[in-house]
Amino acid sequence: MGFGLRVVVYFAFAFVSTISSLHLVIGERHWRWRDDEGSSSLPKHDDLVTNLPGQPPVDFRHYAGFVTVNELNGRALFYWFYEAMSRPDQKPLVLWLNGGPGCSSVGYGATQEIGPFIVDTDGRGIKFNNFSWNQEANMLFLESPIGVGFSYSNTSTDYDNLGDEFTANDAYTFLHKWFMKFPSYRTRTFYIAGESYAGKYVPELAELIYDNNKDPSLHINLNGILLGNPETYDAEDWRGMVDYAWSHAVVSDETHKTITETCDFKSNDTWSNEDCSEAVDEVLKQYKEIDIFSLYTPLCIADTASSDDKSLLQVMMKRKSNMMPRILGGFDPCLDGYANAFYNKLDVQKALHVSDGHHLRNWSICNLNIFDGWADSKPSVLPIYQKLIAGGVRIWVYSGDTDGRVPVLSTRYSISALGLPVTKSWRPWYHEKQVSGWFQEYEGLTFATFRGAGHAVPCFKPSSSLAFFSAFLQGESPTSSR
Amino acid sequence: MGFGLRVVVYFAFAFVSTISSLHLVIGERHWRWRDDEGSSSLPKHDDLVTNLPGQPPVDFRHYAGFVTVNELNGRALFYWFYEAMSRPDQKPLVLWLNGGPGCSSVGYGATQEIGPFIVDTDGRGIKFNNFSWNQEANMLFLESPIGVGFSYSNTSTDYDNLGDEFTANDAYTFLHKWFMKFPSYRTRTFYIAGESYAGKYVPELAELIYDNNKDPSLHINLNGILLGNPETYDAEDWRGMVDYAWSHAVVSDETHKTITETCDFKSNDTWSNEDCSEAVDEVLKQYKEIDIFSLYTPLCIADTASSDDKSLLQVMMKRKSNMMPRILGGFDPCLDGYANAFYNKLDVQKALHVSDGHHLRNWSICNLNIFDGWADSKPSVLPIYQKLIAGGVRIWVYSGDTDGRVPVLSTRYSISALGLPVTKSWRPWYHEKQVSGWFQEYEGLTFATFRGAGHAVPCFKPSSSLAFFSAFLQGESPTSSR
Repeated sequence: MGFGLRVVVYFAFAFVSTISSLHLVIGERHWRWRDDEGSSSLPKHDDLVTNLPGQPPVDFRHYAGFVTVNELNGRALFYWFYEAMSRPDQKPLVLWLNGGPGCSSVGYGATQEIGPFIVDTDGRGIKFNNFSWNQEANMLFLESPIGVGFSYSNTSTDYDNLGDEFTANDAYTFLHKWFMKFPSYRTRTFYIAGESYAGKYVPELAELIYDNNKDPSLHINLNGILLGNPETYDAEDWRGMVDYAWSHAVVSDETHKTITETCDFKSNDTWSNEDCSEAVDEVLKQYKEIDIFSLYTPLCIADTASSDDKSLLQVMMKRKSNMMPRILGGFDPCLDGYANAFYNKLDVQKALHVSDGHHLRNWSICNLNIFDGWADSKPSVLPIYQKLIAGGVRIWVYSGDTDGRVPVLSTRYSISALGLPVTKSWRPWYHEKQVSGWFQEYEGLTFATFRGAGHAVPCFKPSSSLAFFSAFLQGESPTSSR
Repeated sequence: MGFGLRVVVYFAFAFVSTISSLHLVIGERHWRWRDDEGSSSLPKHDDLVTNLPGQPPVDFRHYAGFVTVNELNGRALFYWFYEAMSRPDQKPLVLWLNGGPGCSSVGYGATQEIGPFIVDTDGRGIKFNNFSWNQEANMLFLESPIGVGFSYSNTSTDYDNLGDEFTANDAYTFLHKWFMKFPSYRTRTFYIAGESYAGKYVPELAELIYDNNKDPSLHINLNGILLGNPETYDAEDWRGMVDYAWSHAVVSDETHKTITETCDFKSNDTWSNEDCSEAVDEVLKQYKEIDIFSLYTPLCIADTASSDDKSLLQVMMKRKSNMMPRILGGFDPCLDGYANAFYNKLDVQKALHVSDGHHLRNWSICNLNIFDGWADSKPSVLPIYQKLIAGGVRIWVYSGDTDGRVPVLSTRYSISALGLPVTKSWRPWYHEKQVSGWFQEYEGLTFATFRGAGHAVPCFKPSSSLAFFSAFLQGESPTSSR
């Protein structure tokens, strides 16, 4: 869409906003137009999304497009930003990252989990999410690193260097350049959230911000990080994964006994022990039979034609190192398929400013090449936790307790390895009179479980996830009475 | 109902049967009347149930009433017997027992789990169960021992002697007297099935039968036993319960560590260690917050008026012995309430031949007094397993793997303590293309899990439970290909 057309569309949108500002009730949602509640300070904006196919009517603005992070090589990252539903100028800014590595925050976080528009089950449209996190914050979703979703580089050798450090550096650059597009958010209270392999990305980016904040011109008002079923410390993550598989009756006593007796996950040479290696292969083999990301839900049994997709999504890798098998994020292969259909529509790509409306870009929810070629991965981000805690950055970690991929045992082992003093002992937290999970508070860190939730927690527990997110932003303990 | 009236009603029923025998299709079920498929050899019968309120039309007969097990003391046990849906004369006879102790096989097994009529959610009626186990067998449900459901004694001191042995003896007497009422089943292939505390009842009764079978006049054609989430070996059941609570994130690492370091469940003096005792209390305390019988489902949050019922149903007891806390069976306090309403209706009691239609008997799904006053409980039935295996009696054990009360870890620890050789190693079994669970076969014993099922497995997985029951009766492994 040319600039002129965008301006016309924007003005048309603004006009509709104005004439509709009389406490318009849309459906049963009873939202008021923002004019009533505090106005956006954003100027007219090229990236404003105005005609997303199938979008339900809403009274907040959202923006999508590219931010160039390296002019020389032509590297650009794709983002989708939703203003808060009300009073965006008074609400914090939250960056959401998905993991993989290689998976899209747009395909997972934004449109399966916590964004306002959830991809519909027919793959053609989107529906409104009553529990979108932009009720509480301005939500920024980033496809990171290059090669993920719409993000790209014009320099092919860039793809050979992908790893934790590359990802953090580009995300950091992205943030500063994004603030130039959205200057009113430059000094806003800022949080980073993410799940799965973003358990590495989030602290790594937070550390870059924290370190660079010594330079006032680069200061970002980082207040806290929020991590869901996060990969944290490979050795303990591995140990938790096999103990969880055994205690959840996915593998036999015999297999688990072999692992206990022969595997040293803290060694650099874990897999050289054949007994260990074979027993761990047996764990992975059993998990291929079910959805490792959600133990008790059915698999998406698609037509036989799509069985290749299934194996693609269930791919598991055990490296010849002690690195975790970086299985693709997300939990519902069917949902993944719907997202794939939606983002490969020309009109959708045009609305999101990634296509001129004539040339279709190939979008996939996860890029296996990135996953396969990952160059560097920190074996543990616990030292970063310690640095951030010392620096007063709030750390909350949550865990859907029916996820086998980064299970609650892994997360507890990892946190336990930090050796933080307990300040509030283990107790339930509640939502709508039910136990949502349990939580324990440490000096500088809060850990909470989501009872009966798989890997991508908000997919399973949208309402309690939103309540939990709100508690995190307030810095208040989750509700501990029924 | 007087005898004369019963005869009239019976003849009316028989007449309707006859004129309806022309391949009558009832609803969408496409059942044929039994006359087409093999006729019942049963004579006219006083216990035939002909006018159960709200009963959907079916083409099999069912019978309910009392069997006196001790004339002198006036002890009588209540049963409900459903002929198989088709060819009852060619199908085995299966006795089903619920546990508690003190809970009703009618209230749980028959009308919440595996019988043809499931109590409706309004507590007033019943609905047809498409996965009733009487598709595969003639199903006999017994309220045992006296004090449970409608079963009673006229001698109050009898209630002081209730325990495992008393229960087994009365159940054994019941069987022989029941065969006098239903002589065509006298030599039928026979199985005993049950769940929870029936993990004790079932082997104990099987042993009595096995021992007495040496006398040909007492011979019962016992072929096998089937046990669901069964209490088996108190010491290992306890260990499994606390390990499960920890690995399923119900209690903290700290609590579990204390238990591991201080509890000796094989001692007769487990609770004299205060650290152990307090840590186990902490486990029970956390479980009071959720449904221990089904970790990931919501609690029935009833009106505040019924909060007493809830605490009654959630009661947990830790004895000053190493006996398991014998928490009441079942999983859904709401369902329990519906059963309670249904069986306390005068017309229902009249139809089941427990009331004259004028005097209401007080029925409750579980009798806490029995639970509290239980005199003797075998700490382990594994020696009985060994005897039965040696005698060629088939033993199948299954475990719903989201039950915290007799969790899958307890059952695996208990079976492991038997030290049987593995004949078919751990692998998934399937139903409708999904993994139903995993199974492992030992010499003389088959163990299987139900993925995502709570304590009363058929409530959660009705279709796969029926398939599994069918495999058990055939003596064939569960389906091990998708």
